[in-house]
Parts: sequence; C-alpha cells; structure tokens
Amino acid sequence: MKLLAVGTVAYDAIETPFGKTDKILGGAATYIGLAASKLGAKVNLVSVIGGDFKPEYIEVFHKNSIGIEGVKKIEEGKTFFWAGKYHTDMNNRDTLITELNVLENFEPKIPDSQKNSEIVMLGNLHPAVQLSVLEQMSVKPKLVILDTMDFWMNTAWDSLLQILSQVDVITINDAEARQLSGEFSLVKAAKKIQEMGPRVVIIKKGEHGALLFNENKIFFAPALPLEDVFDPTGAGDTFAGGFAGYITQTADLSYENMKKAIIVGSALASFTVEKFGTEKLQHISSLEFENRLNEFKKLTEYNYSF
Amino acid sequence: MKLLAVGTVAYDAIETPFGKTDKILGGAATYIGLAASKLGAKVNLVSVIGGDFKPEYIEVFHKNSIGIEGVKKIEEGKTFFWAGKYHTDMNNRDTLITELNVLENFEPKIPDSQKNSEIVMLGNLHPAVQLSVLEQMSVKPKLVILDTMDFWMNTAWDSLLQILSQVDVITINDAEARQLSGEFSLVKAAKKIQEMGPRVVIIKKGEHGALLFNENKIFFAPALPLEDVFDPTGAGDTFAGGFAGYITQTADLSYENMKKAIIVGSALASFTVEKFGTEKLQHISSLEFENRLNEFKKLTEYNYSF
Repeated sequence: MKLLAVGTVAYDAIETPFGKTDKILGGAATYIGLAASKLGAKVNLVSVIGGDFKPEYIEVFHKNSIGIEGVKKIEEGKTFFWAGKYHTDMNNRDTLITELNVLENFEPKIPDSQKNSEIVMLGNLHPAVQLSVLEQMSVKPKLVILDTMDFWMNTAWDSLLQILSQVDVITINDAEARQLSGEFSLVKAAKKIQEMGPRVVIIKKGEHGALLFNENKIFFAPALPLEDVFDPTGAGDTFAGGFAGYITQTADLSYENMKKAIIVGSALASFTVEKFGTEKLQHISSLEFENRLNEFKKLTEYNYSF
Repeated sequence: MKLLAVGTVAYDAIETPFGKTDKILGGAATYIGLAASKLGAKVNLVSVIGGDFKPEYIEVFHKNSIGIEGVKKIEEGKTFFWAGKYHTDMNNRDTLITELNVLENFEPKIPDSQKNSEIVMLGNLHPAVQLSVLEQMSVKPKLVILDTMDFWMNTAWDSLLQILSQVDVITINDAEARQLSGEFSLVKAAKKIQEMGPRVVIIKKGEHGALLFNENKIFFAPALPLEDVFDPTGAGDTFAGGFAGYITQTADLSYENMKKAIIVGSALASFTVEKFGTEKLQHISSLEFENRLNEFKKLTEYNYSF
C-alpha cells in the first residue's frame, strides 16, 4: 500500500522554557511524512513551498524516501511560517506569528501516479482543500484519515461537515471534540462525531494519552510520562503520521491493528517532543524505537487474572 | 492480613449538574472501608462520629462486615459535615460548607486487637493525627499508605514531612504532587516525593487515570471513559480503599500485585461516580465487578508483537 499525505510544509520558530529556535523545518505534512517513513511506509506528500525553502530541507525528504513530486514550489512566493511560544504547562501555546504566504492560495494537485493511494491522510487544512484532494482520487481509498481544528469549526462549518461525511477516521484533540459535538463527555462526543461520518474517532489528550473509538469499542493509548517535554510542536502530527504509516506499512485495516497503530503513533510522538522540531524524529535508531515500544508495553501491562 | 483505615466518617451534601442530595453518608474512611470490604478484605475503621449519626448508616458498616470498634461516638457532638457543588467539568468543585464538629478534637484510639494490623491506610487528616496512629501500633505494619492534600502542605508542613518519612505509599493528586515537590513534570515530582520517604508514589489524575511510581518503574492505570460522571465524591478514597483492600486480601505486597491493585481501585472508583455518594459502591454485584475488570483489560490490551 502507499500513503498520500496532504498538509503544510512550513517554517516554524519555536520558543519553550528550554530555549528558542530560528526558522526551522516544520508543518503537518513534514511530521506525518517523517513518522510514516520511519516505519518503512511508502509515503508521498502533497503541499506547497516558497522559493525560500532551503535545499537542505528538501534533502531531508529525499534522505527519508519521502515522495515530494506533489509538493509544488512557487519560486516567487514564501513558505508558510508559524512562530509560537510555550509556557511551563506545555498543553497551551501562544501563536506569535502566522504568515500564510504560499499557503493562501494552495490548490493541491495530486500526481497521477498517486491517485490510487490506498491510504489518504488529510492534514489540518481548510476542509474545502481536503475535499478537493478526495475528488482527485481515481480509486476510492481504503482508508481516509482526517485531522482538523477548532479554527475550521468557527469559519468553515458546512465544508467541515461535508468532508467529515467522507472520512473513515478523524483525529482531534479533546477540546475540539467537545466543540465539534457540543458534548462534554468524551464518550458522548465520540458517538456524535461518529454520526457525522467517521467510523473511527481518535481523541488526542496530549500528555494524558489518546482514546480510540471504533463502533462501541474503546481503546486507550497512554502517553509516556517524560521527565521533560522539550518542545511539543508536531507531536499530534507525528502521532497521526505514525498511525497512518503503520497501517500503510502493515496493510491491515482491522481494529486490532489500529490499536497497535496508535501505540506506534504515541511512541513516535514521545520522541518528537524530546528535541526542537523534527530533530529527534529524523534520528531515531531501530533499537531506540524497539525499546520505546517496550516501555509502552510495560506501562500498561499487568496480570489479568484476579 | 487485616487493614486498619483511619479517616473521616461524615455527612455530605452534594450538588452536581444531575441533581442534589440532603445529608448522606460520606467520609474518606467510609469509602475506604466499603471499597476494601467489597474485595473481601478484613477492614477496621478508626474515626469519630456525633450523636446525630443515623443508625441506618451504622447498619451499612455492619452489613458489609466493616469493623467499627475504633469509631468513637460522641453523643453530645455532631458528625463532620461537608457540602459541595460540582460544575460541568467534574474535576473542580466548590466547597459550600465545612463543619468540623467532632472532628475538631479527634484523637484516634486504636483498639488493642487492631494494633498489629499488617496494612494501615491513613486517610486524609492532619499529619499529626496520622502520626499518632503509627505511634500506637504494637507491631510495625508491613505497608503504610498515606493520603493527604494541599491544605496540610499549606498549614502543617513540618508534620507532613515527618509522616511522609514513615510511609511506604502515598496517594496524591497531580496538582498536589506538583505543589509538594515543586516540580511540574510528574516524573520529576514522583522522584522528589520518593526522596521524602514513600517508596511508592501513586499520582491520581481523575478522569485521566493514575500513575504508579515504584523505584524507577512506572505503571499507568487508565480511568474508564464514562458517558456521565454523576458524582465524583469519594472516587479518590474508593480508589485508595480498593488498592489497600486488594493488597490486604491477597497478602501480596509485590510491585506486580500493586499494579493489579490500582486497576481494582480504578474499577471500584468507576462505580462510585455512577451514583450519589456510596449508593453504587454499596450495591456492586460480583458479575458487574468482573465485567468491569474485563472492560479495563480491553481498554489497554493489544498485541505486543510489532
């Protein structure tokens, strides 16, 4: 199988209690691509960058065998730029700068060779842009995964409902799940969201882990308790990319495999937050990854006979 | 083994978005006793009540084989009374009334026959009162479990440090763990608290589950995602009572058994929040309990081969 991931490729400038960066490589599609490629999944990105995008960052994609035929470069434009600041409680951040630049008129164009991708990951973008991706597919994907945010609930409700009716899986954080559904209880929220379209609802709770709702079944993946969260930027996209990438690589769309996929996503996200930006995600060794999966196992495993 | 539990036996008046109660049976020792007795553990309470304490509530203890020889009745006094109100976010509550009454001059007196209890659960009380319990034991307990709260950190710091140095296990919520340790990261907080005495630190995160720190090992017990949390009063004490009761009943103090004990505590707490006060906790059938444990298993179990 192959994974098509649509989303931003960006410059981020990040400030945390541990330090700050200049413009570094960021964007949802970047994290999704890196996470999926770590798992050996064949992944292609669809995005847009400006003439200022550094060749060394193009090299990052090549080195990780991430397809960028669908990443359009607009020479006269500038790459999407986001600057943000985190405080001690890393669950909250202030956006300091958002420059849409080339993203403003982004019309994704799927390369012909990728229009039959079995798995499609729609990163957080305007729902109309996400819709146009699905319309370009020549073969109905086996699994469509959507990420979205409160901003689109406030500004593009009708388009959001339309795309929701066409996806299989949604990843969303807890506050957004509550806003989207109008329900405080996450169990009730997930049920309402399932009625909007997605059969599977994944609610991300940051340091409190993630819930996977599939029909009437619930699975919970913990987040790894860490001494320090150095920089949470990209953790949610890494999680989603790990989830999509694991399913792509194993070509197994069952509920049992989705459970493993969110553990894998959580494990990869636990690396992302250890350093600034994509730095750690780019350099995870097989042994580190194996050990991390073992830590997740030990975190919740117990003897079931009482 | 037998469990000695020291704490409040109280009247509570509770208001939640789902309704409100008159004065009903409450108090830390009550929930601890009921939770432990559900597991078949031999449990004795040490507490104090007033002349206004209803005979029907005495009957609740008798019916559940909870020893109350150590519960002193002061005929001319009134039972400790707490009234509180919860909002939609059940993690926060407003205290409306606190009448200490007979609790004000409470000096726990351990009956001679219970001074050799192997497991001691010190419910949330003034640290000096908790200390006086340990001083009365004729045989050093095999396991001392302490619950405390921010109030004692603000008003009785030195006594708190003294009792901390003498306990094996502490149960504490996340905000209190941060206050006690001065660390935001719960992993760092647990380490600092371990240096204060308790070998095992259990951090309660309410709807986000609980973390068990034992030496360098971490175990995570999820909370069951519920459609509605009807009334969270007593959930933390039920959790602690289930933990202490399971260890008492199995007479197994190993780390592996502690993991099971916090799952049991979480399962019992998930019942407590389904109805007002102790109503549900008093009437859990064996089948319901077994099914609930199975739900916990399904919540985090996955195939570990990747």
